[in-house]
Amino acid sequence: MGKTIEIRVGTFDNNFSIDCPTLHDNLISFGKMPILYVTMVYHVFASRSRMASKSDDITLVMGRTFTDHDLHHIPDMNVDRIYMDYNATTPLEPEVVQAVSDALRDAWGNPSSNYVAGATAKSIISQSRQSVARMVGGKSEDIVFTSGGTEANNLVLHTALEHFKKSCRAAEQSEGPTNGCPGLPHIVTTNVEHDSIKLTAEHFLADGKADVTFVPVSKVTARVDVEDIIAAIRPNTCLISVMLANNETGVIMPVQEICQRVDLLNKQPERLRILLHTDAAQALGKISVEVQELGVDYLTIVGHKFYGPRIGALYVNGPGRRTPLYPMLFGGGQERNFRPGTENTPMIAGLGKAAELVTSNLSDYQSHMESIKLYLEERLQDVFRDRIRFNSHYPGSDVLPNTCNVSILGPALQGWRVLSTCRRLLASVGAACHSASGNRLRMLPAPRPFTWQHGSATWRLFVGCFPLEEWLVRRQSVELCLLITLQPTGGSPV
Amino acid sequence: MGKTIEIRVGTFDNNFSIDCPTLHDNLISFGKMPILYVTMVYHVFASRSRMASKSDDITLVMGRTFTDHDLHHIPDMNVDRIYMDYNATTPLEPEVVQAVSDALRDAWGNPSSNYVAGATAKSIISQSRQSVARMVGGKSEDIVFTSGGTEANNLVLHTALEHFKKSCRAAEQSEGPTNGCPGLPHIVTTNVEHDSIKLTAEHFLADGKADVTFVPVSKVTARVDVEDIIAAIRPNTCLISVMLANNETGVIMPVQEICQRVDLLNKQPERLRILLHTDAAQALGKISVEVQELGVDYLTIVGHKFYGPRIGALYVNGPGRRTPLYPMLFGGGQERNFRPGTENTPMIAGLGKAAELVTSNLSDYQSHMESIKLYLEERLQDVFRDRIRFNSHYPGSDVLPNTCNVSILGPALQGWRVLSTCRRLLASVGAACHSASGNRLRMLPAPRPFTWQHGSATWRLFVGCFPLEEWLVRRQSVELCLLITLQPTGGSPV
Repeated sequence: MGKTIEIRVGTFDNNFSIDCPTLHDNLISFGKMPILYVTMVYHVFASRSRMASKSDDITLVMGRTFTDHDLHHIPDMNVDRIYMDYNATTPLEPEVVQAVSDALRDAWGNPSSNYVAGATAKSIISQSRQSVARMVGGKSEDIVFTSGGTEANNLVLHTALEHFKKSCRAAEQSEGPTNGCPGLPHIVTTNVEHDSIKLTAEHFLADGKADVTFVPVSKVTARVDVEDIIAAIRPNTCLISVMLANNETGVIMPVQEICQRVDLLNKQPERLRILLHTDAAQALGKISVEVQELGVDYLTIVGHKFYGPRIGALYVNGPGRRTPLYPMLFGGGQERNFRPGTENTPMIAGLGKAAELVTSNLSDYQSHMESIKLYLEERLQDVFRDRIRFNSHYPGSDVLPNTCNVSILGPALQGWRVLSTCRRLLASVGAACHSASGNRLRMLPAPRPFTWQHGSATWRLFVGCFPLEEWLVRRQSVELCLLITLQPTGGSPV
Repeated sequence: MGKTIEIRVGTFDNNFSIDCPTLHDNLISFGKMPILYVTMVYHVFASRSRMASKSDDITLVMGRTFTDHDLHHIPDMNVDRIYMDYNATTPLEPEVVQAVSDALRDAWGNPSSNYVAGATAKSIISQSRQSVARMVGGKSEDIVFTSGGTEANNLVLHTALEHFKKSCRAAEQSEGPTNGCPGLPHIVTTNVEHDSIKLTAEHFLADGKADVTFVPVSKVTARVDVEDIIAAIRPNTCLISVMLANNETGVIMPVQEICQRVDLLNKQPERLRILLHTDAAQALGKISVEVQELGVDYLTIVGHKFYGPRIGALYVNGPGRRTPLYPMLFGGGQERNFRPGTENTPMIAGLGKAAELVTSNLSDYQSHMESIKLYLEERLQDVFRDRIRFNSHYPGSDVLPNTCNVSILGPALQGWRVLSTCRRLLASVGAACHSASGNRLRMLPAPRPFTWQHGSATWRLFVGCFPLEEWLVRRQSVELCLLITLQPTGGSPV
């Protein structure tokens, strides 16, 4: 109870703002999370001081019970939206919005210009590069800003092909290992990667540019097995790309172990160097990510998954020196020619700020999310008992602290059908970029005996953990939402 | 004098802000240009009402003469920077900053999400697409948002190669024209394109992916000659890419005539279709740009050249239907799979707003810039007489209304040397992306007899026309700057 709690008003949902001084005054700062803490606080106090039991649906902070009267001070409480899709995108942290806005106004100069307006922009970019590097434990020179994660992932796959081509040319001139040449480059990845890896690899395959092995994740652990990855390696393998954490199950992949094993292979003198990539889009801001510890050559960074703006970056371990990086674009020489195009200074400023916040606050973020998730899962289990399965519980697998993915068995309970009738609950059945395909189920593993054979009678509420406190503060609590899921055709939409 | 004048304070240079009510109250709105109008107004009134002569170095507005006392109200007047590099980048129009900021706060949802937060973002993107389409006279469906002009240009060149490849495959199956197949695709462009065309084409050439003809512009007109372009066409020509206006001379290229001639060639039944592209980065916001009138298949749009943010778009005449468009990136299906990656909603919102402003205000912009340029050129001519050459004056060529590019002959007057000692004057000797190469001269034509043989004793002040009014309002006027240029080693830096 020594920590303080802070309400950040209206930062993560513009449909929702609290201007209730009573409520505000009773909350004090507790870390730096860009969320409303009411419920998390409720939980923390409930479990620590037993001032309220978990089944109570009352927000209790600092010994004070909020009544209906207090909550009526919160405008539009009954029509507020409940956002539960933090793995699709995140709101921007207010400090990030400020950094972007400041740069829009003050750093509009062309960073390549040899005068003060250019130098101002250049200096902001340089600071952001440092902040992003620090977040992943790399050096400034290792960070290449891109337009987003999709571009970063495509850049890695493109580089792998060029790396293979160049290595083959060198081999022809007896300058390098001959393994795999002549022949097609071979890429090893998993069957649960983001589409910017999956579809790029499939395109290479269809176009006859590369061979690709999509190693399936284990149905028991939802992780890819290190041995399966190693077994997929061929003499012409030039890249292994495995995501750090899955966007739907939240399961953390054994990237470090894969890198250690491949590192040994790469030490064989005649072996074509296998490049190592991880897409850390879902991991950053949720768990500790250290490039040295992981041992990767490339790591994808996506701003809008950790309260930053819609750009990204690629970490490359010594780009063009220790690790090859071949540009996809050609132009004015920006980003040391690895990624030309006049720099998006304001967005880069925002990315730097978001990275800075992650570096400073990660352990707070983690413990808060973890405790909220625990509470959410306990409540869901209480209500649904044997009808619920947690798609983010796998024996022996670590899972992101923010991801709680559930399936609930019942007639007509397809996720898309329920969600399409929801007015207040903003959630999804899977990755946003698949939303156009409706109820399409991703090839994700599910713990037995609750398999996807039940798919048609199953719905999945894809949640991050941040919104629970929004949910509970309205007193409708978990129960209302669950009631709707039980009676999706009968009740009013949530 | 019926028009009104508006001061937009602090919008284009954070080092400069006017909070002088005296000055402010005496100025009234005159159009919608995102600049300080003081000097332009001075000029307009000077020439129209003869209330002040042009040689007077006093800002006179609405019959009121501003004295030193008035100007002392403007903070840091003596250390203000004078920005004269509007072709490198432009400050953001305040309404654009507002649109971006609003979207950062209110439209952070993933546009692909099937709920209200997603729909809000999607709707903003859709409105922006309409605004951008309207600016160039196209349809919404013809606009594909990209990370910037570099990506848009690269995308066109990439598409040309794929178009050739696909056409050849079809020809092999007797489904299409056989011209040029088998063989390399051939691209026709000019020798004064932006690096994102030039270096991409050179990369294709070096990599054995394409043949390229760089048609030199005429040394007399600084334009590319239509006949030269037509003469460069081969049976395997798949793309002609000619910029709409040059970024250094401001000369407008005969894109419409080229398209008309190529259109006739494209009607020949056995001819491989030649795709037509123009990079309109420097033309938009300065002259009228109409895709139907030009007859292009592709047109590159760059936000930060017309007071918009650092993203861009590609106009494609019926992408994937009437005109081929092959993606460079693969991912979540955004932009109809032509350019995947979670949309940068705030920047797209800003681009739409900037486009809207261009559509509404273009004719005002044009006449303002034209009159400022005329005045600037007259003053320069008065002072330097036979020592000055205008690199933006070419017989028979139209030039952008904002571009005034001069060379002044004299010992030790290299542009980079003079500019590197300037503290106040923010200008360049050429495109910003070449700034790292110091005094490197672009292969631009110069009117005879003032040729680049004099290069080492020549400096070029690369100016847009907006900043003149900033310059004059400080009373140091044109003369001070010119004095420095005449005595670059002796006088204090400007």
